[in-house]
This record gives sequence, C-alpha cells and structure tokens, in this order.
Amino acid sequence: MKALVYNGPGQRSWREVPNPVIQDPEDAIVRVDAVTICGTDLHILKGDVPTVDRGRILGHEAVGTILEVGPAVRGVAPGDRVLVSCISSCGRCEYCRESRYGQCLGGGGWILGHLIDGTQAEQVRVPFADRSVYRLPDGVSNESALLLADILPTAFEVGTLAGRVGPGDTVVIVGAGPIGLAAITTCRLFSPSSIIVVDSAPARQKAALDHGADLVFGPDVDVVAAVKELTGGLGANVAIEAVGVPETFELCTQVIRPGGRVANVGVHGAPVTLHLEELWIKDITITTGLVGTSSTPRLLAMLAAGRLPMPGLITHRFGLDEMQDAYDVFSRAGETGALKVALFSDESKDLEA
Amino acid sequence: MKALVYNGPGQRSWREVPNPVIQDPEDAIVRVDAVTICGTDLHILKGDVPTVDRGRILGHEAVGTILEVGPAVRGVAPGDRVLVSCISSCGRCEYCRESRYGQCLGGGGWILGHLIDGTQAEQVRVPFADRSVYRLPDGVSNESALLLADILPTAFEVGTLAGRVGPGDTVVIVGAGPIGLAAITTCRLFSPSSIIVVDSAPARQKAALDHGADLVFGPDVDVVAAVKELTGGLGANVAIEAVGVPETFELCTQVIRPGGRVANVGVHGAPVTLHLEELWIKDITITTGLVGTSSTPRLLAMLAAGRLPMPGLITHRFGLDEMQDAYDVFSRAGETGALKVALFSDESKDLEA
Repeated sequence: MKALVYNGPGQRSWREVPNPVIQDPEDAIVRVDAVTICGTDLHILKGDVPTVDRGRILGHEAVGTILEVGPAVRGVAPGDRVLVSCISSCGRCEYCRESRYGQCLGGGGWILGHLIDGTQAEQVRVPFADRSVYRLPDGVSNESALLLADILPTAFEVGTLAGRVGPGDTVVIVGAGPIGLAAITTCRLFSPSSIIVVDSAPARQKAALDHGADLVFGPDVDVVAAVKELTGGLGANVAIEAVGVPETFELCTQVIRPGGRVANVGVHGAPVTLHLEELWIKDITITTGLVGTSSTPRLLAMLAAGRLPMPGLITHRFGLDEMQDAYDVFSRAGETGALKVALFSDESKDLEA
Repeated sequence: MKALVYNGPGQRSWREVPNPVIQDPEDAIVRVDAVTICGTDLHILKGDVPTVDRGRILGHEAVGTILEVGPAVRGVAPGDRVLVSCISSCGRCEYCRESRYGQCLGGGGWILGHLIDGTQAEQVRVPFADRSVYRLPDGVSNESALLLADILPTAFEVGTLAGRVGPGDTVVIVGAGPIGLAAITTCRLFSPSSIIVVDSAPARQKAALDHGADLVFGPDVDVVAAVKELTGGLGANVAIEAVGVPETFELCTQVIRPGGRVANVGVHGAPVTLHLEELWIKDITITTGLVGTSSTPRLLAMLAAGRLPMPGLITHRFGLDEMQDAYDVFSRAGETGALKVALFSDESKDLEA
C-alpha cells in the first residue's frame, strides 16, 4: 500500500510500504477512506517531536472501513464504517479507569502516527480497537466525522470543559485555527455572553465570525485593554490558548479577571513566563492537557443531530494519493488560507458529494 | 492607644496613635486581645507591597473583644469575644455573591493592615463587621482562634481545596512554615495516602512530622527522583507551594504526575518559568489565590471540636507592648526557630495559661 512516511526533519515521502497486519487480539485493520493533516504533523516534520522515529507513517485522524479484527474485538466487525480516534486506550490502567485515556499507561494514548504507524496511508492497524474506533451512524458523512478524530474532542475537553465555560461568561479564544474554531463551537454549547477571538489572519477572523464569535480582534487592537473595557474593568472569565507560543499564553493570563481560568490547548515547544508576582493573589486556574476522548461518543451523537456546526472548516479536498500536495497546501496555510484539509480514497463517496 | 506603624521600607515604630472611631454604620471597634505577625508583614516592611502607605498600622490577624458597633451591625455586640479575619467583605459585589470574599470589589478583601489600619494595635476598626468578625465559642482559646484569622483558612482553601486533595493521594508540600504546617493539618482531613514535606530547616522538618507529615525531605534529597520512586514512577497527585520563590514553584510543577494539581499558596515577588513545552500534554492544573474565608465558620466549629491540631505552632509569646521584640524574633526565624509568634493584651487570659 501507499503511505506518508517521515524520513527525518523536513523529509516526507508518499511511498509503497507493507500492508499492516493484525499483531494483537485487540487490533483492527482499517481501510482509510478519509484522512486529514494536523498541525502536530507539521511539528513532527520540523523535528520538534523527537519521540517519532524515522520511517514512521504519520497521521492520527481518519474515517475508514474495518477490514479485519483480532479475536478479542467485540464492538466492530469487518465492513463497519468507523471513526479512528487520535487516542487509543488499553482500558485497564489507572488513567483509563479514570477516563483519562490520553494518559494511558498500558500502551495507548496518542500512539498513531507517533509511536506506531498512523492513518495517512491506505490502511492502518488500530490497537485496542474496541476503545479506539467508533462505529458511525449513516447520517454522518466521512468528512464531518473526521472532525471528531481530534479537533472537536480536543477543543471541547481541553478548552471548553477544562476552562469551565458557563452561561454568561466572557470567553477569549486566542487563535482561530481549527482548534480555536472548534473551541468557539463547543463553548457556545454553554451559552457564554460573549466569545472574543484573537487572530491576525483576516481569513481566520472571518471563519471565527462564521463559527459564532461575537467579536474578533487583530494585531491592531490592545486586546487586554479592549477586553477590560468590555467587562467593566474586570477581564474575561475564561481564556483559551489555541496557538502554542509564549506570547499567546501570556496574553491569556493577562486578559482574565480574578477568579478566571486559562485553558491551554496549544502545543508548546518552549517555556513561558508566568507572572506569579501578579497572579498569586488573583484566584486563577491554569489547565493543560492532551485530549482524553471520553466525550467522543457524546459528540458523535451531537454531530449526527446537527448540533456541532463547523461551517467551511475543511477548505481543501484531495484524493488520498495527492497526499504530498495536501501537505504543501496545509503547510503554507498563510498563503493558501487552509484551515483543515481532507483527503479521500476512491472508495469514499465524500469527494464527489 | 499604642500601635505598630509602618514608616517606609525597613522602618517600624510602636507608638501612640489616635484611637479608632466608627466611620460607617457597618463598622465595629474591637479591643485587640491577641494578635500575631504574618510573613506578609515582613514583605511589607521590606517595601515589597507598594500599596501600603507610610503611617499604616500593620496586622490582619487578631482575636479581641467588641467595644462598639455601628447602627447597621446585627451579628455582634459590645462584649462579644471575636475573631478578626484577614478578609473583610462587602457582601454585595459579584465576587462576594460567589463567596470569593478575598476578591471583594466593594471595599473589602484584604484591607486590614494593607489599605486601612490593622490589628497590631490596642484597638482596631473593622469594616463590614457582620461579615468580617466571628463570635468565638467559650471552649476556644484566644491563642488557638488566632490561627483561624489567616493561616488555617488560607492553607485549607488555597492549598487543600484548590489542589483537590483526596483519599489515597500522594501530596507534596513545599515549605513547612505556618502555612505549610496548616496545609498538612487540612490535607489530612481528606485521608491522603502520603504527605511529603520539603523544607531545609531541621526545626521545621520536626514541626512537619509533629503535624502529621509522613516523610520530610531536606536539601540533600533529589525530591523529584525520590517522589517518583515512591509513586511507581508517576509523581505526586498534588503539590502545594508554601514558600513563594521561583525554585519552589518550579519544583511543584516537576513532582506532579500527569493529571496532577499544583496549588500555589506562596506570595511571589518575581515571575517564574513555566515549562509548557513539557507540561502542555500532561493534564495538569495550576491554581493561585487569596483566601476567601468562606470556610472560616466551618473551621471554627472544627477547631472547637479539636479536629484541627496544630501542635507547637506558636513558638513565642509576648505581651502586646513587646511588639518590637516579637518582630525581632519573627524576622530572624532562621536563628530563633520562630514559627508563629503571638502577642496578648493584659486583658487576655491566654498569656498566663
């Protein structure tokens, strides 16, 4: 089969590799019908994630069809159309017992396209299949289901829930990439009074408004002063960091009011300065996290019911064998305006739809 | 009357000042029977708290007797023996409505010995008396009640509750001063499996063991490695910062496991480095806060029932007019072994007891 292989920093190839095979009784082999590229894949390609070995097939988000399952798999069977989640879980360890599947100690967690071969391929082996793939109802397209592999549960669990967004809150979301946009959609479920989005790119500002942001601020705005003015001098109840650089994290700690929460979702590659000399007295909470995906079944039901609108999030569509083109477009998002790209196999009906 | 007056950085005097008078219908005038000195008072004397004006009477912890109340005060009356809390509250603002009295926007919060004259005096005016003083039951001594003015509610709310200490947890407390020791006492209410205390002073290590710490580590121990070894490689569930310098905060972020909590209680004067490049993925929570004192009535009932043992915490006792001596002993805690000092008026029976 063909797969996107990481050959070391800056090097990727779409090339022939052996088909995956069942290695464990809990494995499933999935034919990839739809797949996407995550910002994290670009981090890997830059060499920022040293735990990824050369020769690794990348990708941790897909929708596909079960081809084969190991003898211990009970929940899915060949022919089932499934979501392949970014998180696998052993279901047995201390963290899995507490629904923190992202921290699985038993060989799960974020393993696809990281510690084992991933989804940017014609087929993928998924360990712990009963807790790592989700059968899709007929009404949900491959394309929309793809957003449940990572970005919607990540934005919901690590952003909206960790930040304890509630009715009447003022929420500031820094960064309007796919995660920031999914944070808007999931924050709105809790009826905040105002969602203010900060991003410098006009296309992303427009996408934020399309997703339901009440206000967008670009680089010309003094965000801290503007948020304070909008909140009677207090600041936001919640700030969600969806970029992953020190400046945006520090902005989040500055825009919140006493008693406020900063939910960090961004993937960081460098330390940040935390101004405890100002914050020690302010009753603030800062959270970080890798998605656990305990919310995936619930979000899937909501998606099927049309309760998770993500209009226009997928900006570019490709055939699966156009993987290198898709990477080129996604990695030059500043020029191409790409938010999320999706690639479809010939078997997937979505491309024609 | 006599009072301890801040005359600018490094300058304090115990001198004659006018008696306080009722200024507002919600005020009470309290005769100070027992009072203590807080580490924060030493910060003020160093000039670290620029919001404190010269001429300010310091002190925010006391036990005393009501001398006079304004016409709007209903809960206490002249002759009542009361705790004077470090936190006053207007009872009307958004934060008071949510029990975050420390963040009061209506003129309360931490005001005594900070924005208005404090308790290190023969008498003190206490605003919002119905929500800022607490009538003491007969069985509670002035000396033990003094610990409820600040350190017990601070350690309980900002340390133990914010850190969500629970049954079976491994808790690391960094710093065994009065707040760290009160954190041991209040953490034990939740039955953790192990409380590990980190402090370099032998006298404080002994005090930690007396308060119920299971292990104490000094500067000769690699705390991160030792805690990991004790926890199957994972780290602590909760770390409580009770010092207030960058090194101890960063230690707290290093000793916790994925999913762990850092509750910062220390007063910080400088920024810290937060290693988000390691922590973004680890599902951690960091909290800060000024005590709200919503727990004070509950803690008072527990103190009366003998459920909050703080053995030997008050190491030095003085008469009220020995204020300067008490400051000398407390500010040289490294030499004198002082944990908490207490000063008693001639009217207080505790000194003789």
